[in-house]
Amino acid sequence: MRGAVLYGPRDVRIDERPDPRIIEPTDAVLRLSATCICGSDLWPYRGLNGASEPAPMGHEYCGIVEDVGRAVTSIKRGQFVIGSFAASDNTCPHCRAGYHTSCAHRQWVVGAQAPFLRVPMADGTLVATQELPSSNQVPSFLAVSDVLGTGWFAADAANVKPGATVVVVGDGAVGLLGVLSAKQMGAERIIAMSRHSARQTLAREFGATDIVAERGDDGVARVKELTRGVGADSVLECVGTKESMSQAIRVTRPGGSVSYVGVPHGVELDGAELFYTHVHLHGGPAPVRRYLPELIQLVQNGRINPGKVFDLELPLEQAAEGYRAMDERRVIKTLLRP
Amino acid sequence: MRGAVLYGPRDVRIDERPDPRIIEPTDAVLRLSATCICGSDLWPYRGLNGASEPAPMGHEYCGIVEDVGRAVTSIKRGQFVIGSFAASDNTCPHCRAGYHTSCAHRQWVVGAQAPFLRVPMADGTLVATQELPSSNQVPSFLAVSDVLGTGWFAADAANVKPGATVVVVGDGAVGLLGVLSAKQMGAERIIAMSRHSARQTLAREFGATDIVAERGDDGVARVKELTRGVGADSVLECVGTKESMSQAIRVTRPGGSVSYVGVPHGVELDGAELFYTHVHLHGGPAPVRRYLPELIQLVQNGRINPGKVFDLELPLEQAAEGYRAMDERRVIKTLLRP
Repeated sequence: MRGAVLYGPRDVRIDERPDPRIIEPTDAVLRLSATCICGSDLWPYRGLNGASEPAPMGHEYCGIVEDVGRAVTSIKRGQFVIGSFAASDNTCPHCRAGYHTSCAHRQWVVGAQAPFLRVPMADGTLVATQELPSSNQVPSFLAVSDVLGTGWFAADAANVKPGATVVVVGDGAVGLLGVLSAKQMGAERIIAMSRHSARQTLAREFGATDIVAERGDDGVARVKELTRGVGADSVLECVGTKESMSQAIRVTRPGGSVSYVGVPHGVELDGAELFYTHVHLHGGPAPVRRYLPELIQLVQNGRINPGKVFDLELPLEQAAEGYRAMDERRVIKTLLRP
Repeated sequence: MRGAVLYGPRDVRIDERPDPRIIEPTDAVLRLSATCICGSDLWPYRGLNGASEPAPMGHEYCGIVEDVGRAVTSIKRGQFVIGSFAASDNTCPHCRAGYHTSCAHRQWVVGAQAPFLRVPMADGTLVATQELPSSNQVPSFLAVSDVLGTGWFAADAANVKPGATVVVVGDGAVGLLGVLSAKQMGAERIIAMSRHSARQTLAREFGATDIVAERGDDGVARVKELTRGVGADSVLECVGTKESMSQAIRVTRPGGSVSYVGVPHGVELDGAELFYTHVHLHGGPAPVRRYLPELIQLVQNGRINPGKVFDLELPLEQAAEGYRAMDERRVIKTLLRP
């Protein structure tokens, strides 16, 4: 089959790769209905992860079960399924506590920018929809696989409650779906920090009540002004840089909560500084598997339409252009059709 | 009056100081029944805070109201009262959220190692007992003022729930009272990390079910062994060093909670490392005022006896020896009688 491979900084190619097949008896192989490019794919794309070997790309996926290993019991051929970027057994103590991305047998899924994908621990990782989706539902189910699940975890980890005042730092797809998630969780006021008009529009559509275009000290001052000097109850840090983390912490009220869901790059927290802010801090790789049943239901019922974050759709063969468009921030998120 | 003043590293003297008097109409002046030396007093005592001026010492106190300003309404002369090391208005949004140590009008209390003390914002800061305490209750009420309140916040901030497995890092007075607090909150298993036999004994008396004497990698391995490889639900970091914070984070299960209540000294947290641990992190200067009514009640009813952490009692005039004994870890905590 042909799939996306990163050869070096800004060098993504569609290359011949081995067809996935069942290796472990707990595996499934999927024929992907859609896949996409993640904000986190841009870190290695920009050469910031120091990878030296050609690397198959992609970890967001949904599709039809093509084959299952003999030990797979709950997942059947022909089902439409969604999984997370972390395969998990769903039975270990960490999974039972809801932290599937810390599963004792965790395996990172790679190579999903392709027509077929092997998924380990299929019973623990995949969740099937009740019926096959219509084609216009596919982008939203694909979003559930990572970007919505991550935004949802961001809102949950920031302890968003009905009536809360929420700030979302970052207007990438995760941040925008953090807005949608906070809205679903009953936030009364949602302040989206964004300087891009198209993203501001989508943030408002997803439930943002206020937009703050300022950054740094000015951004902090503006949020303080909007919250009568108090700060926000819940702040979702959806970028992963030192600046965004600092901004998130500084707009949070004492006793409020900051979540962080983007892999931090160059973030150092000074213990004494953090101490006097009195914030709650929680984050990590989003345990999307925990939320799959609920999020699938919300999409199935048409209650949410997270697929709107895909503002570019390309055939898989044009993945390189999809990366370029995201890298240059011309688009929010690229969906690829295998 | 004569009170404790720090002149430089390991140089505490009892010196003539001005008698406290009402300055603001919201002030109270207390005649202290007892005061004590805090673990946090040892940082400047050891010259680690870089203070250059002679500094009046002490911030833990309880005693009889000697005088009140004309704007004080709830606190009366002759009452026995307890306050926190942070004076607070108890009415601002941060106080109402329970974070009195981030009060919009916060003032740090200083100079409590003395016979008299001025306390600002008396109505917001002080809580009176229902009746005058017996002399053997005084040490426990004194403990409520800071060290128990801080241990209690540590347990609360680490989200200790009935049935929980808890680790307490640090066997100082705060750590020991963190054990007592976790026990009161229904923890099933309380692992105290301590290498000192007298402190181990008190930890067990306060509710510790296991003692781990190892530190560093060995300490982490031992806790993991005791928790079947999973880690603890709630971990109280009661020291404030890089090593203790690292230890606390490493013994916590993914999704578990780490609290930290000692002012961090030299603690830097790497964002990416923290990210993959999946812990909740919360702490700061303990908002003791939030807990005063409840803790006073527990002492009044004889349910808890936190005063046991005082294993040395000296006249105030001998404060210097009290500091030495704590600095050399000969004693857990020194009570001073003015």
